[in-house]
Amino acid sequence: MNDIVVTGADGFVGRALVAHLLETTSSTLTLLDQSFQTGASTPRIRQVRGSLADPQVLRQALQRHPATVYHLASIPGALAEREYQLGYDVNLQASLALAQQLAEQHSHTGTRARLVFASSVAVYGELAAGDVQEEHPTVPAISYGAHKLMTEIALADLSRRAAIDAVSLRLPGIVARPATESGHGSAFMSLIMRKLAAGEPYVCPVPPQATAWWMSLPCCIANLAYAGTMSTTDAPLSRTWQLPVLTLSIEQILEALVRRFGPQCRQLISYQPDERITALFGRYARLDTPAALAAGFRHDGDADQLIHAALQ
Amino acid sequence: MNDIVVTGADGFVGRALVAHLLETTSSTLTLLDQSFQTGASTPRIRQVRGSLADPQVLRQALQRHPATVYHLASIPGALAEREYQLGYDVNLQASLALAQQLAEQHSHTGTRARLVFASSVAVYGELAAGDVQEEHPTVPAISYGAHKLMTEIALADLSRRAAIDAVSLRLPGIVARPATESGHGSAFMSLIMRKLAAGEPYVCPVPPQATAWWMSLPCCIANLAYAGTMSTTDAPLSRTWQLPVLTLSIEQILEALVRRFGPQCRQLISYQPDERITALFGRYARLDTPAALAAGFRHDGDADQLIHAALQ
Repeated sequence: MNDIVVTGADGFVGRALVAHLLETTSSTLTLLDQSFQTGASTPRIRQVRGSLADPQVLRQALQRHPATVYHLASIPGALAEREYQLGYDVNLQASLALAQQLAEQHSHTGTRARLVFASSVAVYGELAAGDVQEEHPTVPAISYGAHKLMTEIALADLSRRAAIDAVSLRLPGIVARPATESGHGSAFMSLIMRKLAAGEPYVCPVPPQATAWWMSLPCCIANLAYAGTMSTTDAPLSRTWQLPVLTLSIEQILEALVRRFGPQCRQLISYQPDERITALFGRYARLDTPAALAAGFRHDGDADQLIHAALQ
Repeated sequence: MNDIVVTGADGFVGRALVAHLLETTSSTLTLLDQSFQTGASTPRIRQVRGSLADPQVLRQALQRHPATVYHLASIPGALAEREYQLGYDVNLQASLALAQQLAEQHSHTGTRARLVFASSVAVYGELAAGDVQEEHPTVPAISYGAHKLMTEIALADLSRRAAIDAVSLRLPGIVARPATESGHGSAFMSLIMRKLAAGEPYVCPVPPQATAWWMSLPCCIANLAYAGTMSTTDAPLSRTWQLPVLTLSIEQILEALVRRFGPQCRQLISYQPDERITALFGRYARLDTPAALAAGFRHDGDADQLIHAALQ
């Protein structure tokens, strides 16, 4: 039986990934999350409720010896910064425990699991002016980024040892999250789309010139699914890919929203820049990812396609 | 009472550091190691026996709320590569637990400990041709290097949060270890000096052209002690310094040994290159460390001074 495990399966990205996997594979799916909005929709799905940081819950999730694990669960950056221990337990230690258990699985059963890890552009820390290359130095400015980076290194090491087969993807802000979601410092990236599309006013915490790295949820799912099946024969030792992104300013997003929803969008938006949010999420330079593009990963194309896919 | 803790205190570097701290400070010293060759030589010394990976041992070592901790204990690279779990428990998890306990100490007592961490040039992985700068990418090729790098990142994060005050030093091979020590893939760096100085034949596992990064034990101790007292006000966010080193080939070391001990050294050495050891420890290019030199760290000067200090 070919089982696929998804951690954080009831989150924004998780639910979309599960829907995609149900459609495109015939595997059984083991879904792990703290709670689920609805019960299992098909016998192919097994739901495991609990914290990833609980060794018993983790063991239960992995009991079918999965060939593929999508590890999406994490405490969001702003929350992990306030609640250090929670972030340390989940973002770092639970990720390490997951990798260790998969390595044990390999030594006991011979099944070397593909582990797709949702890492983050937060590994880079504050970005100075100038284009960003795939080899950009990583100096995390928040604990969330530090723990994602440490996990990348652990997964690369276990992959080098052939105990697991990891692919770590550095994700940008994924849009458009539901307006109710909080805990993400980059929430403004989704809110600007949701609010203006709904004809509601929005006070943006970064200035119009602020630039960010954007990816729609459907594009993110396509990249994750690809990472689950791609060949890793020629993968770099780091096992880490910076996903291609669109680098767009708030102004460029606004113009695309105007093209889609009309000129009233310009009246709906106002600005109250927050220096910390701007420093962390609003000064992203152009990002070049020739290696990730060559490996088969992709971005949304342009601002109009981004907004179309993000609000789909 | 101002207590200084040294982990790995009975090792090659630890014993020399303890002697230096006894001479140059008036602090009490808590020494942690699995065992000690001799008992405490002075009432200033408290010996704690046990594994750093044992939470109770760690707690006992830190019970005097140290202002300074030198964290030297680690499973050597070659051994950690063979015994993965041992390296994971000690080099990674025990280091993380130490940092977490010091962060707790800060929140309970207000004492923010200076933590000097003996990291390693193993964080870089295999080095391609060309000079190495301080910002060189880190892609560890052994688990030892991966776990050192992960620890650096964790310590930088806790320092950014002002819970600890860490300084991580990337150490090269330190010479000259006793001929009896094993477990280090870089053992040849010490053995060539010890054996030729003693007039004994030596079969070198890397070719004469192999280049390595060298530092004598006295120079290493001076750098560690400096890291224990230097100001970190202007420290980089990474809290990590690549120590200045001498990049010297086996031939250059041999010539310096000939100058010191005579031409018979040339007859005593023969070569049976091992490709793996050569790849990991014998292809180090010139290393530029302007930031570390400006911060007050130093190397041995030249090959003659290196050998003089190493065999002192």
